[in-house]
Amino acid sequence: MRLFEDIVKAQKRMAGIIHKTPLDYSKTFSEIAQNEVYLKLENLQKTGSFKVRGSYNKMISLEPDEVKHGVVAASAGNHAQGVAYSSNMLGIDCRIIMPKGAPLSKIQATRMYGANVELHGDSFDEALAYALDLKERESAAFVHAFDDEAVIAGQGTVGLEIMEQLPDVEAIICPVGGGGLIAGIAMAVKETNPAIQVFGIEALACPSLVESLKQNMPVTVDALPTMADGIAVKKPGKSTFDIIQRYVDGVFCVEEMEIARAMLMLLERNKLLVEGSGASSLAALLYQKIEIKHKKTVAVISGGNVDVNFISRIIERGMVEAGRFVHLELILKDKPGNLEKVLKDITEQQGNVLDISLTHMGENIYPGYAQLSLSIETRDHHHIEHIFSNLKTKGYTPKLIS
Amino acid sequence: MRLFEDIVKAQKRMAGIIHKTPLDYSKTFSEIAQNEVYLKLENLQKTGSFKVRGSYNKMISLEPDEVKHGVVAASAGNHAQGVAYSSNMLGIDCRIIMPKGAPLSKIQATRMYGANVELHGDSFDEALAYALDLKERESAAFVHAFDDEAVIAGQGTVGLEIMEQLPDVEAIICPVGGGGLIAGIAMAVKETNPAIQVFGIEALACPSLVESLKQNMPVTVDALPTMADGIAVKKPGKSTFDIIQRYVDGVFCVEEMEIARAMLMLLERNKLLVEGSGASSLAALLYQKIEIKHKKTVAVISGGNVDVNFISRIIERGMVEAGRFVHLELILKDKPGNLEKVLKDITEQQGNVLDISLTHMGENIYPGYAQLSLSIETRDHHHIEHIFSNLKTKGYTPKLIS
Repeated sequence: MRLFEDIVKAQKRMAGIIHKTPLDYSKTFSEIAQNEVYLKLENLQKTGSFKVRGSYNKMISLEPDEVKHGVVAASAGNHAQGVAYSSNMLGIDCRIIMPKGAPLSKIQATRMYGANVELHGDSFDEALAYALDLKERESAAFVHAFDDEAVIAGQGTVGLEIMEQLPDVEAIICPVGGGGLIAGIAMAVKETNPAIQVFGIEALACPSLVESLKQNMPVTVDALPTMADGIAVKKPGKSTFDIIQRYVDGVFCVEEMEIARAMLMLLERNKLLVEGSGASSLAALLYQKIEIKHKKTVAVISGGNVDVNFISRIIERGMVEAGRFVHLELILKDKPGNLEKVLKDITEQQGNVLDISLTHMGENIYPGYAQLSLSIETRDHHHIEHIFSNLKTKGYTPKLIS
Repeated sequence: MRLFEDIVKAQKRMAGIIHKTPLDYSKTFSEIAQNEVYLKLENLQKTGSFKVRGSYNKMISLEPDEVKHGVVAASAGNHAQGVAYSSNMLGIDCRIIMPKGAPLSKIQATRMYGANVELHGDSFDEALAYALDLKERESAAFVHAFDDEAVIAGQGTVGLEIMEQLPDVEAIICPVGGGGLIAGIAMAVKETNPAIQVFGIEALACPSLVESLKQNMPVTVDALPTMADGIAVKKPGKSTFDIIQRYVDGVFCVEEMEIARAMLMLLERNKLLVEGSGASSLAALLYQKIEIKHKKTVAVISGGNVDVNFISRIIERGMVEAGRFVHLELILKDKPGNLEKVLKDITEQQGNVLDISLTHMGENIYPGYAQLSLSIETRDHHHIEHIFSNLKTKGYTPKLIS
């Protein structure tokens, strides 16, 4: 297989430029998932995600003549940083087109690697159209985020590393967006040892690969908002789809709350910041989406680029899901002492109030009454039930706000 | 030196039980600190901090007869988890006394390792008194958090690992609370190669070691609230102080905002969750508190146990310090369209509004006026100045809220 040889070649080319990332065993996750779980930490990769492997391999594969007018890429995410870092390493001019309204932090991170960032269009598709046009006008080279053999070969080096680090690996779980990462890994792994299973994970909000596999060709799906924005690709690539169809053992979906919970666990227990798409592989294992048991299993943690402004919201969602945090509302008679009394009832049950507000205005609040909103830190779902039933016993009608 | 030999022995004893944590080079931090900066990642240690090294070594050093009634410890932090994990590994009964009101997450983490957690007293000192009393009553063994030679020897294994991982290390920067970690490291390092410099870092909010060194004996200081609660120890230990006085090359303080900024950088750039005390060593390097240049320097990142409810507040403080976030208030005439107009003025300057509230009630708000509070995501301090000067040009008097 030429592509397999390309992966081996890619690994040699990127030595010293791209990190060989850690493969860490996790006892806690192994117990929950009923498999022997290892994490391949591509969130600790240069630029914070695996993407740099593919873009670096693509750009070093181009002839000097092809890059004399620089490279162009379109992305609002990890691909942008990968291309920017690679062009910096290789001394190639680079223009990254992002849609207007891309997060400030992503723009700055990409500029920090020396890329020229230009904001065009209101959506990714408009930015992409502009980038393709620019590439033609300026005879630049275009670096696709996934649908390119050199990019796939670069991502495949993750598979070679896993087999070096855990020679008796039995299964690999990998997040899927456009499919570059899983195609590369599957190619690397199956050409070496076809007995190793490779599974893909998508966000249920954007199940384009599952749908494409059903219809036997790449199709476009509508995407709902998802925390796993890095894998919310509406249509798999052509080359990636062919490889996936041939080699991948199954593709499964995870829900938003499952992703949030996995992110929170990685942060709290492993002290690792992982983005939504990066945590989806672990989420699939923890929520037993794949029918494997007692296997030496690697979850590929594909990236860690979370906008810091999102982190607190993600933590909150993960905590709600774990029963460690609850929002509730109840109506109080507007009388001195009533506020204190309800707080005493919550303290009795060891609830820790984190946030409180009281309002007299609102559709369902009658004169002489007030609405109390509370955020309470709790131990688990049982604890929440105790707090609610205690409040009900005392004559309140607490309402759960999700 | 007997204690040096104890460190070597401790390292052998804990093999396979305690992680040999990574030592990671950081290009970005090296540039900012003008030294060659490596991070010793004890936040990735079992239980999320180095503390487990000392408690494990202490407990394995005790005779079976000494632990037949179990062990007792007092802590609301990392020591609790270290003792709980060690007793689990060694099959020794363990009771941890925490003050009432200890964070739920810490209580649960400690219980998860199989420890009996009891809540006593309203402060750490009251919990400690109860623990010492319990130890007497039940003939249990007491595991001190730092002032104990076996504990110091355990922590010293961090120093041995650093010298193995970076044989030509020139300086080691270490957070200091009670002094167990730095005493162990200094002993390990100086007895091997006295040319390696060892520096201690305290939070300015609780500079007990700096004060004790001035007065030539351990003294008690008053502590202000600090994000680095893990090193907010009001009085150094007796044994630790003697070792520090003999071996340590200097002790320096870092401020709260410097700690917050270092935590945020570790999270954003390195995808690592680090607690305040753990980030203080890096903060000292980034803010050039120590007079070293172009040295191969290791910052010991001592732990990563941040209560998740604090993370968003820490991120916010770090972002304020970096000029990436600003809170402001201004007074508006209460007229339709005025709210929209001021938002347009902010959009003109590319400010991204994250949070907004408008109130008509308040001491300084006259009838017919309203007070607008805004949280805005910004690029840097220059960007904030532009937004303020633009608002002033338009006739507003924005007030910075810190």
